[in-house]
Amino acid sequence: MIVVMKVKATAKEISDVIARIKSDGYEAHLSEGEERTIIGVVGESPTPLREENYATMDGVDKVVRISVPYKLASRQFHPSDSLVPLNGAQMGGNKVLVIAGPCSVESREQIIETACAVKEAGATALRGGAFKPRTSPYSFQGHGEKGLQWMAEARERTGLPVVTEVMDPALVPLVCQYADVLQIGARNMQNFALLNAVGESQHTILLKRGMSSTVEDLLMSAEYILAHGNKRVMLCERGIRTFEKATRNTFDLNAIPVLKALTHLPVLADPSHAVGLWEYVESVSRSAVAAGADGLIIEVHPKPDEALSDGRQSLKPDRFKSLMQQVRRVAEAVDRTA
Amino acid sequence: MIVVMKVKATAKEISDVIARIKSDGYEAHLSEGEERTIIGVVGESPTPLREENYATMDGVDKVVRISVPYKLASRQFHPSDSLVPLNGAQMGGNKVLVIAGPCSVESREQIIETACAVKEAGATALRGGAFKPRTSPYSFQGHGEKGLQWMAEARERTGLPVVTEVMDPALVPLVCQYADVLQIGARNMQNFALLNAVGESQHTILLKRGMSSTVEDLLMSAEYILAHGNKRVMLCERGIRTFEKATRNTFDLNAIPVLKALTHLPVLADPSHAVGLWEYVESVSRSAVAAGADGLIIEVHPKPDEALSDGRQSLKPDRFKSLMQQVRRVAEAVDRTA
Amino acid sequence: MIVVMKVKATAKEISDVIARIKSDGYEAHLSEGEERTIIGVVGESPTPLREENYATMDGVDKVVRISVPYKLASRQFHPSDSLVPLNGAQMGGNKVLVIAGPCSVESREQIIETACAVKEAGATALRGGAFKPRTSPYSFQGHGEKGLQWMAEARERTGLPVVTEVMDPALVPLVCQYADVLQIGARNMQNFALLNAVGESQHTILLKRGMSSTVEDLLMSAEYILAHGNKRVMLCERGIRTFEKATRNTFDLNAIPVLKALTHLPVLADPSHAVGLWEYVESVSRSAVAAGADGLIIEVHPKPDEALSDGRQSLKPDRFKSLMQQVRRVAEAVDRTA
Amino acid sequence: MIVVMKVKATAKEISDVIARIKSDGYEAHLSEGEERTIIGVVGESPTPLREENYATMDGVDKVVRISVPYKLASRQFHPSDSLVPLNGAQMGGNKVLVIAGPCSVESREQIIETACAVKEAGATALRGGAFKPRTSPYSFQGHGEKGLQWMAEARERTGLPVVTEVMDPALVPLVCQYADVLQIGARNMQNFALLNAVGESQHTILLKRGMSSTVEDLLMSAEYILAHGNKRVMLCERGIRTFEKATRNTFDLNAIPVLKALTHLPVLADPSHAVGLWEYVESVSRSAVAAGADGLIIEVHPKPDEALSDGRQSLKPDRFKSLMQQVRRVAEAVDRTA
Repeated sequence: MIVVMKVKATAKEISDVIARIKSDGYEAHLSEGEERTIIGVVGESPTPLREENYATMDGVDKVVRISVPYKLASRQFHPSDSLVPLNGAQMGGNKVLVIAGPCSVESREQIIETACAVKEAGATALRGGAFKPRTSPYSFQGHGEKGLQWMAEARERTGLPVVTEVMDPALVPLVCQYADVLQIGARNMQNFALLNAVGESQHTILLKRGMSSTVEDLLMSAEYILAHGNKRVMLCERGIRTFEKATRNTFDLNAIPVLKALTHLPVLADPSHAVGLWEYVESVSRSAVAAGADGLIIEVHPKPDEALSDGRQSLKPDRFKSLMQQVRRVAEAVDRTA
Repeated sequence: MIVVMKVKATAKEISDVIARIKSDGYEAHLSEGEERTIIGVVGESPTPLREENYATMDGVDKVVRISVPYKLASRQFHPSDSLVPLNGAQMGGNKVLVIAGPCSVESREQIIETACAVKEAGATALRGGAFKPRTSPYSFQGHGEKGLQWMAEARERTGLPVVTEVMDPALVPLVCQYADVLQIGARNMQNFALLNAVGESQHTILLKRGMSSTVEDLLMSAEYILAHGNKRVMLCERGIRTFEKATRNTFDLNAIPVLKALTHLPVLADPSHAVGLWEYVESVSRSAVAAGADGLIIEVHPKPDEALSDGRQSLKPDRFKSLMQQVRRVAEAVDRTA
Repeated sequence: MIVVMKVKATAKEISDVIARIKSDGYEAHLSEGEERTIIGVVGESPTPLREENYATMDGVDKVVRISVPYKLASRQFHPSDSLVPLNGAQMGGNKVLVIAGPCSVESREQIIETACAVKEAGATALRGGAFKPRTSPYSFQGHGEKGLQWMAEARERTGLPVVTEVMDPALVPLVCQYADVLQIGARNMQNFALLNAVGESQHTILLKRGMSSTVEDLLMSAEYILAHGNKRVMLCERGIRTFEKATRNTFDLNAIPVLKALTHLPVLADPSHAVGLWEYVESVSRSAVAAGADGLIIEVHPKPDEALSDGRQSLKPDRFKSLMQQVRRVAEAVDRTA
Repeated sequence: MIVVMKVKATAKEISDVIARIKSDGYEAHLSEGEERTIIGVVGESPTPLREENYATMDGVDKVVRISVPYKLASRQFHPSDSLVPLNGAQMGGNKVLVIAGPCSVESREQIIETACAVKEAGATALRGGAFKPRTSPYSFQGHGEKGLQWMAEARERTGLPVVTEVMDPALVPLVCQYADVLQIGARNMQNFALLNAVGESQHTILLKRGMSSTVEDLLMSAEYILAHGNKRVMLCERGIRTFEKATRNTFDLNAIPVLKALTHLPVLADPSHAVGLWEYVESVSRSAVAAGADGLIIEVHPKPDEALSDGRQSLKPDRFKSLMQQVRRVAEAVDRTA
């Protein structure tokens, strides 16, 4: 941490800051410039350094944090890639893995039909929502446990593991009974009660980036799960909110190589939400793989114009098959498989 | 709802859309232009109109929603202001009500001292966090039930009702035991399990706008609470995320008159979070009242440089007293009291 | 400037950075922590410090700038408020000054009628566009010199000085012939050729913040004008671009007190553009004054539903009169006049 | 255009809107719903339809535009791709073309050395700035005409056409003497005087998207150039401003397939500015090609740690060579060459 003093900070103000640094158990290194004094805070101590408290002291202009605040998620302390097992393969390994399925589980037939189709096209896992976070209380909210049962049946048929969202800490045990991977949706990325609850399970977690969360916020939320002892965490970029209105969200492609540099956790992309219009999902999928994504999660629906949610961004099975072929070619161009 | 057909939509595509409108139980009104056809969807039907499904049909360019999707929160169907009782006064009435207190409840002494100070300065209610949503799992997470007890004790001493955040649906009953107003924080604005849970309580709810939520999203989240039968909902603008880095958030002042026009619910502002730097909290508070806010929620701490959270934006009691005087003068200038 | 070395920076990398600092003519102060080394760069030298060059050196994690990059605009080096004369009053003084008029000058009659109305209501200056920046090449582009002549005629009638936009460096001399204040519009805030040109004139400049410009960017653009010798610069917050769609722009109210703290230049607000809907212009105007704005610029049109531009956000003269009364009351509540 | 009336619009208000539509020369089609009336405006007329004027009329809730406002840039009226000649190849054709070179032309030696290096690696054209838009007036502003001469010399040596920015309408003729392609920078995307000036030249234009401009804004700026008779326009996505701080800008990858769908003009990407950190430029470049970009513009500098601008995002020639190899492989994976 660095404390930057104001241009007119008094000697008393400077010595107060130094005294506090020492009393917190750290060392203070002074750089006295023409214009102002800068104080480097170094060393280790059991007392946490709260930047805000220093920022509030008289004579302090600003406080600059130096260390990354996420230790468990950081590649700095864990240089090699974490591999998360999925259906006999490994997310984070050389093969790009694709999770596919409908936004919502709507019926037994729909989920089984979709599961068969995405399996045939080469998907590694099946997605589907039984508990749906909907902006409107009047929209379809999901079939709940019945939806989970249908997904489990689809798994039996196809062998595809089930990825599904959990929204309430109290429902984590129930969802764990049926699902292989628990998804934390964008709206719940900073639902800390939920992060704690899934951190205590030993299920694999797919953590989606919040729509106004920075890359660092995402890593801090992963840190919650890791700090509770669950190491099977996969991150997912799914588009952020910006002023652009031509697409549902703005896909932050940059976040993919940045995350791969900052963390050892696998990084996925969700092109369906990132762009929100099915006609662009293939392009965005190819780009995510070209940029280094370890996996994709794609919405597929047999009849998008009858979908109870997200029909506008869902691919028909045929288009998904074509997407898989395109993704494979791009994966090869970056020395991976898919 | 209006369905805008593509320029080259075929007669078949147009008739398919019309057929679907009829089969959904609505009427279709055609406007055939030189360039393209526009179809107005009117009437009423038990079948909900899902825009996305129409948007996915062949030949459709886009679908434009016309009605507001929030009926209970809308001023259109409830023209007069809703008044929410608070400490013998009414939020949404002529008097601007101020809720004040520390970010976190840190000790029995701290909360009681702060409660006495804000009461003396003219606050109507006491805020304080016992369960804290923190970006980092290593930051102070709040004292939990002990914090609630200390707040209840502060209420006994001062008569100030207690406003505190609840983050987990399972803890709603516990928090209801101690608190008068349940706060839903920005990060949980679309935590629908939590919205449902507080909607089923009969406690007053202070719903904060999410940092990347539109005004309409905020009203939809209010609608969740209202639809569960709880009519005591207060909304709060607390700053949104933008590219600007000089302040913690960007206070969306516009949202105050816009919300007052769109909804009958009381509208508060949280200048502490909206700007994030204590030196600007007074200016922002005055502006919120000038724009028509019904109330303010302000962070006050006896010793901000020792605060366990949000010290950078907390006012000392003296500054809060000065803020109250300024707010009163501005309130009078817009024909209100404070 | 502070250079933060990577955790694993080698002794060679550190000594290379130190060598460069010395060769640039500065001193290096080392803080060696447990984890990494931080190097404070202090002293003065004719060689400019280019942060990016240090950031690119091997072993460097990041570079943190300490000083503000705008010297002439900064309050640090010029603590007292700059006052800019306008129509016998002073922008930046105790009285809040209001500039009003139509978006575009549409006809001789329109501008004279509006000028008389806004003068009567208490405006200090007349705004009106003769050269219009329009998103579409097919929209009305302004009457050019004829518009300037009509404005000059309106000035003769009313005594109100003329504020008008200039978009092309080549037209600065022409616009200076007719106008009293040159406006640099939001889209041209970083049109450096234009900033240089108006910096060389001795006309008063009204510099609007770009719609995606930070407060610091705005001050840097002011610095361009000041560095060319023109000290009569007024700044204007007019709304920024965010994800919110309920209003045309998001009024960054925070920017007003922040700018007042960072710079000695007068700070205005443009509520008409900041919210974009006439029904909210009064609320936003009151809030700007409550937050400390020195002036307002308001769009007024006798017949908004016939306006050739910005009709949606223009007030009729009656509403403007009411706005002035409200603004006066709020100004008094913050110990100013209007 | 569609006029949506308010729920309580009176018969008089509705008939006034209809009367205006007729007087403007259009036809009005009514859809009378349970709740409100919607009026479709169809037909053709010499009178332009100004949405804002209708939006301001009594009883009108909102006005929805239907047609795209850019006719010349739209693929709707010009379905086949426009091909723009560049160095014997064609931007917009099957081959992905790469423009490379330093941010600023710093010396004769630097630009010639860089030109030789990028040519050898396979670049199609040379970029370099002689007139530099810099946030600070104290930063290096470019060598002006001398820089242009050095670039022309580099072209003689290598055969690479020269791409360079022009910032002032008055300098368009000078820059046209030396350059093959005129670049309009992000900060000038809505500098309409400049757009008009380059529209009147017959030089190829590289138009960069403004950092807070929507895709539609970009197309409207292209329309300015096209409407002045210059058809050789190439568009470039270069990152937009968002809340994310880990990278300089947020690369809007979605914009690439969206632009390819909306317009016939070639679409480039500028990964250097889009991410702002050289270590991620290769990833972003690969992704842009995978998504369908027709070309790339990349910053290359022999010694980034001595660059006078943008050193942080410039590749050394070796890395650029590697980038070209990667881009070629991805291009092949999407059935193109590079």
